[in-house]
Amino acid sequence: MTDKPIRRIAIIGTGVIGASWTALFLAKGLQVVATDVAPNAEAALRKFVEAAWPALERLGLSPGASQSNVRFTPALAEAVAGADLVQENGPERIDFKQKLYGQLDELLAPDVIIASSSSGLTMSEIQKGAAAHPERCVIGHPFNPPHLIPLVEIVGGAKTSEKTIRRADEFYTSIGQQTVRVNKEMPGHVANRLQAALAREVYYLVAEGVVSAADVDTALSWGPGLRWGVMGNMMLNHLGGGPGGIEHFFHQFAGPMTAWWKTLGAPVLTPEVQKKLIDSVHAEAGSRSVQELAAQRDEILLGLIELRTKRPETFAPHTVAAE
Amino acid sequence: MTDKPIRRIAIIGTGVIGASWTALFLAKGLQVVATDVAPNAEAALRKFVEAAWPALERLGLSPGASQSNVRFTPALAEAVAGADLVQENGPERIDFKQKLYGQLDELLAPDVIIASSSSGLTMSEIQKGAAAHPERCVIGHPFNPPHLIPLVEIVGGAKTSEKTIRRADEFYTSIGQQTVRVNKEMPGHVANRLQAALAREVYYLVAEGVVSAADVDTALSWGPGLRWGVMGNMMLNHLGGGPGGIEHFFHQFAGPMTAWWKTLGAPVLTPEVQKKLIDSVHAEAGSRSVQELAAQRDEILLGLIELRTKRPETFAPHTVAAE
Repeated sequence: MTDKPIRRIAIIGTGVIGASWTALFLAKGLQVVATDVAPNAEAALRKFVEAAWPALERLGLSPGASQSNVRFTPALAEAVAGADLVQENGPERIDFKQKLYGQLDELLAPDVIIASSSSGLTMSEIQKGAAAHPERCVIGHPFNPPHLIPLVEIVGGAKTSEKTIRRADEFYTSIGQQTVRVNKEMPGHVANRLQAALAREVYYLVAEGVVSAADVDTALSWGPGLRWGVMGNMMLNHLGGGPGGIEHFFHQFAGPMTAWWKTLGAPVLTPEVQKKLIDSVHAEAGSRSVQELAAQRDEILLGLIELRTKRPETFAPHTVAAE
Repeated sequence: MTDKPIRRIAIIGTGVIGASWTALFLAKGLQVVATDVAPNAEAALRKFVEAAWPALERLGLSPGASQSNVRFTPALAEAVAGADLVQENGPERIDFKQKLYGQLDELLAPDVIIASSSSGLTMSEIQKGAAAHPERCVIGHPFNPPHLIPLVEIVGGAKTSEKTIRRADEFYTSIGQQTVRVNKEMPGHVANRLQAALAREVYYLVAEGVVSAADVDTALSWGPGLRWGVMGNMMLNHLGGGPGGIEHFFHQFAGPMTAWWKTLGAPVLTPEVQKKLIDSVHAEAGSRSVQELAAQRDEILLGLIELRTKRPETFAPHTVAAE
């Protein structure tokens, strides 16, 4: 295996995730060949990239970035010919994926990484389809939409080589993504599990009538969410301990935290519970359309990403709060 | 009861929370009288307010705002004389609070709200001390530090009047805070419960070696956390359903979500688990001091609050992502 630079990406499956990956790779100056069997897939892909482009321009295009660097073909063999990396976004069915990985394994030189966007299947299962070179198969799971949210979770299967994991990590990092190495295969990897853990308590509190959807959203997005948009839980705990750091934090909060855990809810998403949640969300949204609200979300999200991607080393070393 | 404007606040207890409330109220142009029995409390309070002031200036001072509008006295009766609202930040011991509320109930006119910053005790228990007018006692729980994070959770006890809840809500809202009405007394109110639910899974994943502290922080703060700094879980679910909104979201994700819930962890914070978490946080922090990291957090936090407090109505109604 040689560490050939990764310049040409094959995108398999151009639904929402595949189209967003395409937009990102193009913005990073890479060449993309995309394939999908759906009718009108090419037109939908080009429309998505065009709609995403202003945001990508705002976040900064790499040298050579162009919407015209994508070629579309319905033929799998043609799409992956000459690819340095395959980003696979096929349906989440194990029989489909194993068969696909068998085809890819035969079509591709052994040093070409096959990265799957899957969140529902494990690479240990998927790579069983790639009999000759399972070691080059890895999960590279984005957080939707990948052209805006820079997170990529990297998880190997039982037969994935450490070299593949390292090369995938280096590749995604080289185009500005934030990578996470997940050391064990877990349902939902990491980010989706964190979302699920939070949503469980949110649904519980709204279903029990403790708060409205609007109020639980205020509590999150004007409270702990403000901080999670800035730093992660572990580092915030470290700072929450003051000069005593994480040790002092646990000394002070392990007790109350453990007590709260005992009272957290375990809702069941029955049709009745879903209806209560749905009604409360509609009361919150009021007359605002999904499109309008999504525009507000994305506008602030882009601003936050711009804030975060300023180099933090340039900040003056002073605190505005003792805590 | 008359709806007298709230212009003069008595702060009881000037530890971290009371001092931060003081700074906020001063920045909003209010008069503050603060009391605490600790030695050097006044000097520590003035130092805190001075350190907090540049951030408050950046977020915008109200007319009449001045650091000199705080008076300190160690005498409780003197501190609350003439107050329109008391913000109580005493120790989290029920015997202490009940005795204090008995004194306050005698000292104060019946239309003066007594708001407690407590997160560990319920108002139903606390207000038992205020025999004559328990109806004016309410929880007004900030999210630390209140001078930066605008969240206030409002919770009544069994004897709190709806009028008190409404007036407290109007007061905090009038000074720019984001209020949440919590309809049932719950351990940790809402925001701390959401934090606890998330932290439980974070600790589990790090303790099990699935990810490092650094990587779980990346997964949160560059993934779902970015969004939670912008909007709450319920509204994000609504937008995550695309044109079909929250109904489509549940149709698509109730299944996987429920499956993930079954696999979420329930760690026990034994000394060994705490050591593993602590070691991983130190590896993440490296040579960066708590002070330096806190300055980075606060710099981005202020920028995010500035972004969020721009009027969202002015955003153009277009989306940058289909999702």
